[in-house]
Amino acid sequence: MSECPYFEKRHLLFKIKPPLEDDEDSSQEGVNKASKGGVVYGDYLQLDKITTAQVLQSELKGNKIHDEHLFIVTHQAYELWFKQILFELDSVREIFISGHVRDERNMLKVNTRIHRIVMIFRLLVDQFAVLETMTALDFFDFREYLSAASGFQSLQFRVLENKIGVPDNLRVPYNRRHYRDNFKGHDSKTLLQTEQEPTLLKLVEEWLERTPGLEVDGFNFWERLKINIFDGLNVEKEKIEKMPESEEKEELTAELVKQREIFTSLFDEKRHDHLVSKGERRLSYKALQGALMIYFYREEPRFQVPFQLLTSLMDIDTLMTKWRYNHVCMVHRMIGSKAGTGGSSGYLYLRSTVSDRYKVFVDLFNLATFLVPRHWVPKLNPNVHTFLYMAECCDSSYCSSEDSD
Amino acid sequence: MSECPYFEKRHLLFKIKPPLEDDEDSSQEGVNKASKGGVVYGDYLQLDKITTAQVLQSELKGNKIHDEHLFIVTHQAYELWFKQILFELDSVREIFISGHVRDERNMLKVNTRIHRIVMIFRLLVDQFAVLETMTALDFFDFREYLSAASGFQSLQFRVLENKIGVPDNLRVPYNRRHYRDNFKGHDSKTLLQTEQEPTLLKLVEEWLERTPGLEVDGFNFWERLKINIFDGLNVEKEKIEKMPESEEKEELTAELVKQREIFTSLFDEKRHDHLVSKGERRLSYKALQGALMIYFYREEPRFQVPFQLLTSLMDIDTLMTKWRYNHVCMVHRMIGSKAGTGGSSGYLYLRSTVSDRYKVFVDLFNLATFLVPRHWVPKLNPNVHTFLYMAECCDSSYCSSEDSD
Amino acid sequence: MSECPYFEKRHLLFKIKPPLEDDEDSSQEGVNKASKGGVVYGDYLQLDKITTAQVLQSELKGNKIHDEHLFIVTHQAYELWFKQILFELDSVREIFISGHVRDERNMLKVNTRIHRIVMIFRLLVDQFAVLETMTALDFFDFREYLSAASGFQSLQFRVLENKIGVPDNLRVPYNRRHYRDNFKGHDSKTLLQTEQEPTLLKLVEEWLERTPGLEVDGFNFWERLKINIFDGLNVEKEKIEKMPESEEKEELTAELVKQREIFTSLFDEKRHDHLVSKGERRLSYKALQGALMIYFYREEPRFQVPFQLLTSLMDIDTLMTKWRYNHVCMVHRMIGSKAGTGGSSGYLYLRSTVSDRYKVFVDLFNLATFLVPRHWVPKLNPNVHTFLYMAECCDSSYCSSEDSD
Amino acid sequence: MSECPYFEKRHLLFKIKPPLEDDEDSSQEGVNKASKGGVVYGDYLQLDKITTAQVLQSELKGNKIHDEHLFIVTHQAYELWFKQILFELDSVREIFISGHVRDERNMLKVNTRIHRIVMIFRLLVDQFAVLETMTALDFFDFREYLSAASGFQSLQFRVLENKIGVPDNLRVPYNRRHYRDNFKGHDSKTLLQTEQEPTLLKLVEEWLERTPGLEVDGFNFWERLKINIFDGLNVEKEKIEKMPESEEKEELTAELVKQREIFTSLFDEKRHDHLVSKGERRLSYKALQGALMIYFYREEPRFQVPFQLLTSLMDIDTLMTKWRYNHVCMVHRMIGSKAGTGGSSGYLYLRSTVSDRYKVFVDLFNLATFLVPRHWVPKLNPNVHTFLYMAECCDSSYCSSEDSD
Repeated sequence: MSECPYFEKRHLLFKIKPPLEDDEDSSQEGVNKASKGGVVYGDYLQLDKITTAQVLQSELKGNKIHDEHLFIVTHQAYELWFKQILFELDSVREIFISGHVRDERNMLKVNTRIHRIVMIFRLLVDQFAVLETMTALDFFDFREYLSAASGFQSLQFRVLENKIGVPDNLRVPYNRRHYRDNFKGHDSKTLLQTEQEPTLLKLVEEWLERTPGLEVDGFNFWERLKINIFDGLNVEKEKIEKMPESEEKEELTAELVKQREIFTSLFDEKRHDHLVSKGERRLSYKALQGALMIYFYREEPRFQVPFQLLTSLMDIDTLMTKWRYNHVCMVHRMIGSKAGTGGSSGYLYLRSTVSDRYKVFVDLFNLATFLVPRHWVPKLNPNVHTFLYMAECCDSSYCSSEDSD
Repeated sequence: MSECPYFEKRHLLFKIKPPLEDDEDSSQEGVNKASKGGVVYGDYLQLDKITTAQVLQSELKGNKIHDEHLFIVTHQAYELWFKQILFELDSVREIFISGHVRDERNMLKVNTRIHRIVMIFRLLVDQFAVLETMTALDFFDFREYLSAASGFQSLQFRVLENKIGVPDNLRVPYNRRHYRDNFKGHDSKTLLQTEQEPTLLKLVEEWLERTPGLEVDGFNFWERLKINIFDGLNVEKEKIEKMPESEEKEELTAELVKQREIFTSLFDEKRHDHLVSKGERRLSYKALQGALMIYFYREEPRFQVPFQLLTSLMDIDTLMTKWRYNHVCMVHRMIGSKAGTGGSSGYLYLRSTVSDRYKVFVDLFNLATFLVPRHWVPKLNPNVHTFLYMAECCDSSYCSSEDSD
Repeated sequence: MSECPYFEKRHLLFKIKPPLEDDEDSSQEGVNKASKGGVVYGDYLQLDKITTAQVLQSELKGNKIHDEHLFIVTHQAYELWFKQILFELDSVREIFISGHVRDERNMLKVNTRIHRIVMIFRLLVDQFAVLETMTALDFFDFREYLSAASGFQSLQFRVLENKIGVPDNLRVPYNRRHYRDNFKGHDSKTLLQTEQEPTLLKLVEEWLERTPGLEVDGFNFWERLKINIFDGLNVEKEKIEKMPESEEKEELTAELVKQREIFTSLFDEKRHDHLVSKGERRLSYKALQGALMIYFYREEPRFQVPFQLLTSLMDIDTLMTKWRYNHVCMVHRMIGSKAGTGGSSGYLYLRSTVSDRYKVFVDLFNLATFLVPRHWVPKLNPNVHTFLYMAECCDSSYCSSEDSD
Repeated sequence: MSECPYFEKRHLLFKIKPPLEDDEDSSQEGVNKASKGGVVYGDYLQLDKITTAQVLQSELKGNKIHDEHLFIVTHQAYELWFKQILFELDSVREIFISGHVRDERNMLKVNTRIHRIVMIFRLLVDQFAVLETMTALDFFDFREYLSAASGFQSLQFRVLENKIGVPDNLRVPYNRRHYRDNFKGHDSKTLLQTEQEPTLLKLVEEWLERTPGLEVDGFNFWERLKINIFDGLNVEKEKIEKMPESEEKEELTAELVKQREIFTSLFDEKRHDHLVSKGERRLSYKALQGALMIYFYREEPRFQVPFQLLTSLMDIDTLMTKWRYNHVCMVHRMIGSKAGTGGSSGYLYLRSTVSDRYKVFVDLFNLATFLVPRHWVPKLNPNVHTFLYMAECCDSSYCSSEDSD
C-alpha cells in the first residue's frame, strides 16, 4: 500500500509454495482490503509498543521537560540497534560453534553479517550528533528525575561486550564494584552466563588455528618465516658492516639491533604467553601465526575473504572505542569533569574505558609491528597453491545457507 | 549505575525541591540497591516493549529468514525517530499557535527544535546505509511473507508531511487512489484531521507577514525595494546604451530585458496569486516580502535568528527530498525498475515523489532568483534601526520557557 | 617528525634494499636534521602548490568577498578526489585490459580499489554539507565575478563518466550543445579519446561473459534456469487451477500471467537487443546471464568476491546519482529554479541528469526483477562444484601484485 | 558552461557596477567563446597546480606502490581544508581584534564562520574512512620511502592549534624535543610568531569579560548568583535536618556538604587563579562569569547568538579531539602499538595528545558542573531587560559587513 512498492502483487504467487501452510490464506478471510493477504505495516512492526514507550519521568513528577523525550528516544534507538547487533553476532557465533564455518560457502555470510555490525556501529557513532542538540542546561532540567537510571546502564551493551570478548578481569571497576554488581538479580545472571559462552574472540581464535599452511609437517609457515626473517636481518647486517664509519652507520646498526629484538620477541612463545597472561595479547600463539599468514597471503583466493573478515573485526574494535570516546565527549559536555571542585568524577571513569584494554582484537592491530618486505615472505610452491585451492573441496557435505540460522 | 555517570548522587539533593511529591521517596522502600532512589534504566526506557517487538513473519510461516530481523529493526528505528520529529514539530507549532513566538525569547527554542529535526533527518538519510547491507536476494527470500505490509506504509510519515505542509492536492496518487484511501478507518481519520490543523508552513507564513518593516505607513520595505530595483535597472540601461555597438552590447541588452521581466514578475501580485493557485508558490505575497526582508537584513540583530530559522526550514525540505531519493535508490536495488518487462513499477511512482511538488518551503529556495546587489537594498535609517531593535522590548510579559510545551 | 609516528626509524633499515639507489643517501648530505634521510612533509605533498592556489576573483576585481575562498577550496577538494578516483579506476581498468583479472589473485585488488572509489564518493556526497554553509546571499555577492567559470565545469568529472561508461548518446545536451562542445580544443580532444577507450562497463561485461558455468556444452546455466523457471510456473498454474473459484484465484491467475510475461521477456534475446538499442539495457545478453549466475551462486567460494564486486559497482552508480542529486539541491538553494519568472533554468537541466540514463550498471539493479525462489535455481552437481573450485588453478603463472600497476 | 548553471548570463549585467574596473571587459577580447566574459573553470581553480602535485616517492625510487597515491591525496585534502579553516579563523579573529564585534551586526558573521569550521572538522573526521581503505600491509610497502616526512608533520595544523589557543607549555613533547624544534628555520619562526598573536581563546575571553550584566555597580550578576545559591543550599539544609534519621538523610547530608564545597570553589577567586596556573582552567575569572551568565540567560534575545557561539566553540574542541582520536586509531592499525616488543612507540605519544590538555575551551565544558535550578538564577528586572536589549543600540557606527575581511 501507500508508497513503498517493495511488495508487488507477484509475491502472492510465491506464497503458494511448500513452506506455507494451507490454512494461511483462509485465515485472512474477512480482513479489510488494505491488509488483504497479510499483515498490516503497523501491526507487523508492533508500532503500538514502539511509539507508546516514551514516558517522561519529568511529566510524571508534574514538571514536564521537553528535552527528556529526545533523551528517551535516543536511548531506545541505541537499544534497538544493540538488539540487531546481538542478533547478527549470535548468528555468526552459531556458524562458528556448529562447525558450519568449515564449509567455505558460509564465509560470505559470516563476512556480510560482521560487516553489517560495522555499518550499524558507524551509525551509532554518528547518532551522538542528535543527542548533542541537547545542551547541558536542557539536560540539567530533568536529570534529577532519572536518579539511578543511568544513561547507558545497558544490559544489552554489557552482553554485547561479553559475547565479543571483553574479559571480565580487564574491565575497569565502577563505584569500586565489579561491573556485574551494578546489575540486579536476573540481569546479573544473564551477564555471568554470557561470560561463560564461547566469545567471538575465542571462536575466531580456533578458526585461525586451523589456517591451512600452519601444519608443521606441511608447508610449515612459521618455521619458514622465521628462517627468512633472520636470514634477511643477517644480509642487512653484512651490508651495514661494509659501510664506512659514519653517523648513519651507527644509526642503522642501532636500528638493526632493535629490529632483531622485535622479531626475536615474535618467535618467543614464552614471551607470548607472558603477554597473554598480562592481557596485552589475547590470541593463542598458533592463532597469531594464522592471522599473520592470512595477512601475508591475503591475495590468494583462499584467503581473500578471511582477510576481509580480519579487517572487519578491527573495524568493530575501532568503532566501539570511537563510540566510547564520543560518549565521553558528550558526558564531558553534559556534566563537566568536576576537575578542581572536590567532586568525584564519573567522566574520568568513562575516559578510562577508552583504552586498549577494551580492544578485543588488539593483536590484529599489533601484528602491524611485525610486517616484513614482500621478498622475505615464504613463497608458496605450486603444490601449496593447489593445496590451498583444494581445501575448499574437502568439505563435501552441503550446508544449506539458511539452515544455520 | 553501570558506566554512565550522568547522574551523580548530587541530584538526590535537588530531588527535594517543590515539584516533587513527598511520597516519591517512600515509594522506593524495599527496592533493590541498584534502583534506589528512582526508576531503573530498563524500566525507564520500557525495553520490555522495545526489544521484544521483533516478530519475523518468515519464522511464523516456518521458514525463518535471517535478514527479516534487520528489515524490522530498521523500520522501527525510523518510526522511533518519526515520533521524535513529530514531538518537536508539535511543540514548535504550539509556540506559533499560542502566540508565544511574539516573545522573542522563544525564538531560540523554535530554532533549536527545528535544527534538531534537521539533525534527525540527517541521521535518517545516513541510516539507509545499514539497510543497504541487505541485498536484493536476501530481501527476495522473505518479501513474500510481508504481502500488504508495505515497507514505508507509515502513518507517522504521512502525518509528518501533513503537519509540515505537503498539500493534499499536490500529492502523487498511488494505485490510482487518493493517498488517504490507502489507510484504514482510524488512520484515515487521523490523516484527514492533520490536514485540517494549521501546518508549519501556514504558521511560518503568518509570522513572516508580521515582519517589522513591511508596514506601508512605516518603513514600507516593499515599495522602497521596488523603487531601488527599477532605478538600478535604469542606470544599467543607460550605461549599456552608451556602449559602442558590439556583440557584447547586444547580449547585455538582452540580459537587461530578461532581468526586467524577472523583477517585474516579482512585483506582480496577480502573477503571484496565479502561481500560488498552480502550487508553484506556497507563501502569501506578504509573507514572501517578509522572507526577502529577512534575507536582506539578516545581519541586523533582530533578524539573525529568524534568518537561521529560514535556513533550517530549507534544510528540512532538502533532507526530506534526499530521504525520498535515497529511498528510491534502495527500492531500485531491491526490486528493480521492471523497465522492459511489461510489469508495472512502484519504483517509478516513488521517483515521481522526488519532486519540487513535495518541497513545502520551495519559495524560500526560489527567492534566490530575486537577489540584488547590496547597494540596491533600501538603507535602514537610524530610526528604523532603533525600531527594529526595540521591537523586542514591546513584549513585556514574561514567558517561562517550558510553559509553552 | 612532529607528531605522527608512522615512520619509525626502523625503516631506515629497509632502505638498503635493492630498488634503492646508492646515491640516494649521499644526496641527503648537508640537509637539516629534520629532513635527514628523506623528503620533508611539505615538499613531499607539494604544499607550495596546494596552499597557494586560492586566488579570489572578487579580490582581483577590488571587492574581496570572504566566501569565495570556501567556494574555491571546496571545488579544489572535489578535483583532488576526482584525481584519486581516476587513478583507482585506471588501475582497475588496466587489470582487466591486461588480462590479469584472469588470475583470481587479482580480484582482491580489483575489489579493494572499487570499494575505495565507493568510499570516496561517500565522502564527496557528505562534502556538500560544507559548501551549504554558504547561503544564496553570500554566493550572490561574488558569482558575477566567475562569469563563465561554471562551478562544476569539470574535465575530470566528464572523463570519469566516460571511463565508467556513461554513453555519449544518452547524455542530456546542455545549452542545446553536445556536452563536448562546452569544452575547448585540448580538453575536447581528451574527452573524445576517453570515449574511445574501453570503459569499465565494457570490461566488466567481457569478464561476466566468461563466467564459468555459462558454457552451453558444460553446465549450461541459462538453459537449465529457463527449464526450471517454466517448470516452476507450470506447477504454480496447476495449483491455482485446482483452487475453487474466488476473487483470490482470479488475482493469482492474473499474477501468473504477468510472471510468465516477465520471465518470457528475460529469455527473449531479441527483446534484449532491442532494449540495448534503446539504452534501457547496457550489458550483452551473455554478460547478463553471467551476472545472474553470480547472484544465484554468490555463496560459492568462487563467486563470493565477484558478487561483492557487482555490489560495489551498484554502489558507485547509486552514489554518483546521489552526488548529482545533492548538487541539484544545492543549486536550487543557490540560484532558485526561476519557476514562473520567464528566466531559463539551469536547475532544470541539472535535475534531468538525475536519471537512470546516467546509471551505467542499471542492469545489475534491474536483475532484481528476475529473482526466483531458491529451489528453482539449478543445483550444482558435485563435478561442477569441483570445476568451479579448480578454475582458479588453471592459471599457473605468478602475477606479482604490483606489476599490474 | 558544462552542467552547473550557477552562473547564468544575467551576471554579465551586474558586472558593470562600480567596484569593477572599466578595462575588465576589454581584457576579455579575443578570448575563446567558452571563456568569454571571464575566467575558465580550470584556470580559476589552478587545477594545473592541484592535479599535478602527486609525485610518488616509491615511483621515483623505481618501485611504484599504488596506494601511495591515496596517501598523498588524502594529506593534500587535509591541508586544503586546514587552509580554509585558517582563513575562517583569521577572519573571525580580525573581527574581534578590530573591535567590530562590538557591533552586534557582526555576530551573525562570527557565528556562521565558526560554524563553518565545525562543519569542516566534521568532514575531516569522516575523511579517515577513506584512508582506512589502505591496510597496514599496503602502507608497509611504501612507508620506507617517506623517511622523515611524517604523515601529519603539518605546519598548518600547528599554526591552527596556536591560533585557537593550545598553549605552548601544555603540549606533550615529542622525541623529547619541544614541538617547535621539530620544524626547520622559517617554519619554526612562523610558529613562534603565531604563539605571540592574540588567540581565539584570548579574544573570546575579552569579549566574555564585557558581558553586559556583570557590572558590579549594575546588575551585578555574580554577587546575586552567589547569594541565591547559598540561600538555596541553606533551604535544602533545613529541609534535610527536619527529616527523621535514616540512611537517606545521611546520604543527602553528605551530598549537601559536597555541593557546598563545589559552589564554594566556584566563588573562590584564588582557587580559580591556582587552577589557571596549573592549566586546568583557561579563562579569566571574569570571563568565566560572563560565560555562565550567557548560559543562564541564553533565551534573552541579546544572548541567543552568543550562546550559539559558545556551543560552537565546544564543538570545535570536541571535533579536534575526535580527529586526534581517529588519527590514533588509524596509526594503531597502520603500525601497531609495539607493546611488548621493546620498541618505542609513537602510537603512545599520539594517544597522550587525546587529552583535556588540548581542549582549549575546557572551561565551557566544565561549567556544566556549576548549573543550578532555574529558580536559583537571579531574575532580570524589567530595567535590565531593557538594558540588555538596548546594548545593541550603543554602537551607532555602521560597519559594512565585508570591510572586516
